[in-house]
Amino acid sequence: MGKSITHKIIEKHLVSGEMIPGQEVGLRIDQTLTQDATGTMAWLQFEAINIGRVRTDLSVSYVDHNTLQMGFRNPDDHRYLRTVAAKSGAIFSPAGTGICHQLHLENFAKPGATLIGSDSHTPTAGGIGSMAMGAGGLSVALAMAGEPYFIPMPKVVKVHLTGALTGWAQGKDVILHLLGLLTVKGGVGKVFEYAGPGVAALSVPDRATITNMGAELGATTSIFPSDARTRDFLEKMGRSSDFMELVADADAVYDEVIEIDLSRLEPLVAQPHMPDRVCTVKSLAGKAIDQVAIGSCTNSSYSDLKNTAQILAGRRTPPQTDLLISPGSKQVVKLLAHEGLIEPLLDAGARILECTCGPCIGMGGSPVSAGVSVRTFNRNFEGRSGTQDGQVYLASAQTAARLALDGQFTDPATWGDAPERVELPMDVPSIRDLFVFPPNEVGKDAGDGAGSVVILRGPNIVALEEFDALPATIETTVALKVGDNITTDHILPAGAEITALRSNIPAISQYIFSRVDKEFVARITQAGTGVIVGGENYGQGSSREHAALGPRHLGVKAVIVKSLARIHRANLVNFGILPLLLVNPGDYDALAQDAGLTIPASAITPGGTVDIRLASGESVAVTNDLTKKELEIIQSGGLLNAVRKNQA
Amino acid sequence: MGKSITHKIIEKHLVSGEMIPGQEVGLRIDQTLTQDATGTMAWLQFEAINIGRVRTDLSVSYVDHNTLQMGFRNPDDHRYLRTVAAKSGAIFSPAGTGICHQLHLENFAKPGATLIGSDSHTPTAGGIGSMAMGAGGLSVALAMAGEPYFIPMPKVVKVHLTGALTGWAQGKDVILHLLGLLTVKGGVGKVFEYAGPGVAALSVPDRATITNMGAELGATTSIFPSDARTRDFLEKMGRSSDFMELVADADAVYDEVIEIDLSRLEPLVAQPHMPDRVCTVKSLAGKAIDQVAIGSCTNSSYSDLKNTAQILAGRRTPPQTDLLISPGSKQVVKLLAHEGLIEPLLDAGARILECTCGPCIGMGGSPVSAGVSVRTFNRNFEGRSGTQDGQVYLASAQTAARLALDGQFTDPATWGDAPERVELPMDVPSIRDLFVFPPNEVGKDAGDGAGSVVILRGPNIVALEEFDALPATIETTVALKVGDNITTDHILPAGAEITALRSNIPAISQYIFSRVDKEFVARITQAGTGVIVGGENYGQGSSREHAALGPRHLGVKAVIVKSLARIHRANLVNFGILPLLLVNPGDYDALAQDAGLTIPASAITPGGTVDIRLASGESVAVTNDLTKKELEIIQSGGLLNAVRKNQA
Repeated sequence: MGKSITHKIIEKHLVSGEMIPGQEVGLRIDQTLTQDATGTMAWLQFEAINIGRVRTDLSVSYVDHNTLQMGFRNPDDHRYLRTVAAKSGAIFSPAGTGICHQLHLENFAKPGATLIGSDSHTPTAGGIGSMAMGAGGLSVALAMAGEPYFIPMPKVVKVHLTGALTGWAQGKDVILHLLGLLTVKGGVGKVFEYAGPGVAALSVPDRATITNMGAELGATTSIFPSDARTRDFLEKMGRSSDFMELVADADAVYDEVIEIDLSRLEPLVAQPHMPDRVCTVKSLAGKAIDQVAIGSCTNSSYSDLKNTAQILAGRRTPPQTDLLISPGSKQVVKLLAHEGLIEPLLDAGARILECTCGPCIGMGGSPVSAGVSVRTFNRNFEGRSGTQDGQVYLASAQTAARLALDGQFTDPATWGDAPERVELPMDVPSIRDLFVFPPNEVGKDAGDGAGSVVILRGPNIVALEEFDALPATIETTVALKVGDNITTDHILPAGAEITALRSNIPAISQYIFSRVDKEFVARITQAGTGVIVGGENYGQGSSREHAALGPRHLGVKAVIVKSLARIHRANLVNFGILPLLLVNPGDYDALAQDAGLTIPASAITPGGTVDIRLASGESVAVTNDLTKKELEIIQSGGLLNAVRKNQA
Repeated sequence: MGKSITHKIIEKHLVSGEMIPGQEVGLRIDQTLTQDATGTMAWLQFEAINIGRVRTDLSVSYVDHNTLQMGFRNPDDHRYLRTVAAKSGAIFSPAGTGICHQLHLENFAKPGATLIGSDSHTPTAGGIGSMAMGAGGLSVALAMAGEPYFIPMPKVVKVHLTGALTGWAQGKDVILHLLGLLTVKGGVGKVFEYAGPGVAALSVPDRATITNMGAELGATTSIFPSDARTRDFLEKMGRSSDFMELVADADAVYDEVIEIDLSRLEPLVAQPHMPDRVCTVKSLAGKAIDQVAIGSCTNSSYSDLKNTAQILAGRRTPPQTDLLISPGSKQVVKLLAHEGLIEPLLDAGARILECTCGPCIGMGGSPVSAGVSVRTFNRNFEGRSGTQDGQVYLASAQTAARLALDGQFTDPATWGDAPERVELPMDVPSIRDLFVFPPNEVGKDAGDGAGSVVILRGPNIVALEEFDALPATIETTVALKVGDNITTDHILPAGAEITALRSNIPAISQYIFSRVDKEFVARITQAGTGVIVGGENYGQGSSREHAALGPRHLGVKAVIVKSLARIHRANLVNFGILPLLLVNPGDYDALAQDAGLTIPASAITPGGTVDIRLASGESVAVTNDLTKKELEIIQSGGLLNAVRKNQA
């Protein structure tokens, strides 16, 4: 029975589990990437594992998110990331060098390699046949420490491409078409593997746009074969030796098949406020456009921006339509400069921003109130642009550039000839010298050089503390009693002021439950320890790790609830807090705030029941749904302790 | 008796007063400029005058300060400025086109013309012989309405230049030398007029750097002759017809003379945290540098950046030293791109930011905690960089670029040959099409076109209300009683949240006295009107107009104090609040908060005394130091009403 590319790569990297869809598999990870917004905590966690050097083939720490630097916190983060990378054997990419996924594709990604990154658009590298997945910061930290990455074995969907794109249709329209078809939930638990005769007609940048935005399907990842086009791309990037051919077997078996005839695609756009609200560009003709933004990890390649320059050349955008361009990397800018393509962009009225994520993450470039903004990005969630009532549409760079000239949506039939599809020139300039390579070879133990590196932390960067192992008996009190449906926003509010403290657990912990009970932090700080009592669905909402890290810092030993949300439960386990379930929901009433209690922690077994003794003399039965591995993690004081123990 | 350039220009524009130093003169203003941070309020004030079209020869509305656009407020401001400019006959310069002073120098400034701008670095245009002054927003609004600009007639200081700059010394070092000599208070009430054989040796960009940073001397302005170099500059900018020769008479009389031998200057730097803390670069040799920032209205010309590229070419900044470059205008970028000078900047590791003020105003680019940042800017006040403990040094672009390579201060003797002084090429590309010209010719009455323009306001932009004339008798209460030395920060706190509301008087008024008495706004809102009672030196500190506009909006009719700070007193007059002085300071005790009182407003005469009757039956004598003109302004309900009346 033939194998898909996905099966070939997973099989080669399988550390544990069986390749049966839905069952957990552990994968050896060859490469990791982090970006600065999530990376500071990931690197603090890596440091806390205390193994010195990264154990991957290659780990890169990129700075591309918080690059505006309004105040000391961002530059301090960048300096920390630069120095911890040097100390740990990782490559550092300074702010302004480019967007992590674009840079990784151009410089480091490899066909057949596994890559995880602390950013959901890591699948971009699937455009050259890398199995690249977005992951949480802790998972990346563990992968850097050489630990496997665990995922449910995905189903593999074959996207069978025939024909070739014509006219103004682009790679972006392929993924928009799929999003319209499958919705943003259509890819959960699946890898989208592209195949068929249409693949050869798609350039690497088009492929990378498609795998990048496959994240919006909710997919595990997306992947293209590594073929002659991949070889050409890597050769032009000066990386011939990184090429390997990688195609599915002719008789490969897939879980599902989707057919797309590329020749039938036309320019598409996703309407506010969801990437799957897809319609044709022409159906919106006549709608005025306030802003066009070209860039992001989805569409900021040389090919996209050269086409943009060709479309804009000799023309001027109307004054009421602002045009922002954020190139994907300095390599892209150098190619444009070399070909004299910067001037046509400027003459058209474009604002050329730094090579960063920028407006895509609401880091500047917000549209006017209720403004219509056409963006080449991957997400158009309400408010993400920074303007709560902004109306964001997602389109290809070519569509966006053309619409910028018209200042309104128009029918592509009126656009004239599409620009020629771009091939990379033979002499692509290298930007290798702009990366900061660690003193010693990546992946090797420290020798001379790295030893003398001092990791520089600003006042807002605090090393992760070591948490104690779980005691045999927990004598404590109910520090807080809450009701049903408590979200991680209740546990730790979002907002700029608090988010800026994400590298500083002691400081951010002062905001734990601040929206629910202003006295909570003072109370548990005085008591030293405590438990949280809650109702149904405790910890729903955002996946933020800090909603477990903060309580743990303050001394929370257990949460005792009727039921738990899935991701928060995992975070509690990871940071060593017992997630206990009331056997009789009615016992919720017996657990009053400030009540003293004793948990016989050493008596807890996976799925077993124990009695919590209250100071009042009553007792309350609790159970759990922990696996043996999870219980051991909690007993160690959390996953980092457990890994440290294994590594030692 | 011969005349200085300053006297020639003032004489030609004199509307009122005598040219005797210290006496008030009224000047006809030929040109105005506004930038977006101050311009929104200036344009709201212009609208409130209600005369339709600007009456200057030329008014330009630039967007260069708040260009990051974190949320809807900035882009809404920009849209308002674009549409109000179109409606009013002003030119609009969109965000990213460049920094107002650099653009104005390149495109619009004229030798011999008067220019005021709502930005303290407006004197940049003095580099080509324009008499260019920084002014408050209301003054600029009035100048746009054709009203004269009033200043105390300045003393004229001749700065007699001999010799020529050698080696690494630049125009920046001339003004740093002067700042070291005279201090930041050394120029108050003075115009610095450059003369002597050394002038011819200074390029226009060098001259503009010098007049720009003359603002740091506290000077009224600085000005260079308009000579062959000026003609050459204007010709290359495609503006031959704007040239006129303008030199001082050979026997011109000056109030003071300062001699500088240019050939004796060496690279200088201003140390934290004041532009006059000047020392030689070599005296700091060995000090590590975390960041270098090149740009700002002081040093972002083609000449500065071409030299920068030449210095950096083929070299790489060390990883621990971040290099940020903000070009002054898109014309500068086009010149660099045309000559292949973008790539050397990128290859050296530089981050190229948008053509805006950027890091100079703390709008991004903050250094690391306690970081040493060498900047080509004009101000290094504590905290201005956005990093409270940042250590900012000011230097020329050439010095900054060279130090960026070394990553530390070094002795210029070790730097090798200085780059050649740059001349503009013959074929300077125009960026005229990037400005948005109004539908009708500037300065003419509206005809077709402008009539159909709709001024677009976001929810945060609220037209200035019309204030009532002063009633004959004011029956009110003491809304607030405060002590001595109340600052405008007490009256209206600064901070991002509040400052973002500067185009919205109703909203910002809700913060009036919020730091002093949280109930004040509710109290006066309920009462409808009120007076403020204060002690000595009421209204000291920042010049913010909103500290008068806000109270006026809330219904404050008068302040009754022991003494007043000068600028706040002028703002009270401008917005129609009576500044009354207690004849007997001891009566302060009689004026209790919430006390009812009656002010016989129609009985007030300049310098006269009237009795305020208290509800208790007591009476309190108050006087004033108002001129007849000032009293009339207050009686009209403020300066805008007075001007409207005159214009009608």
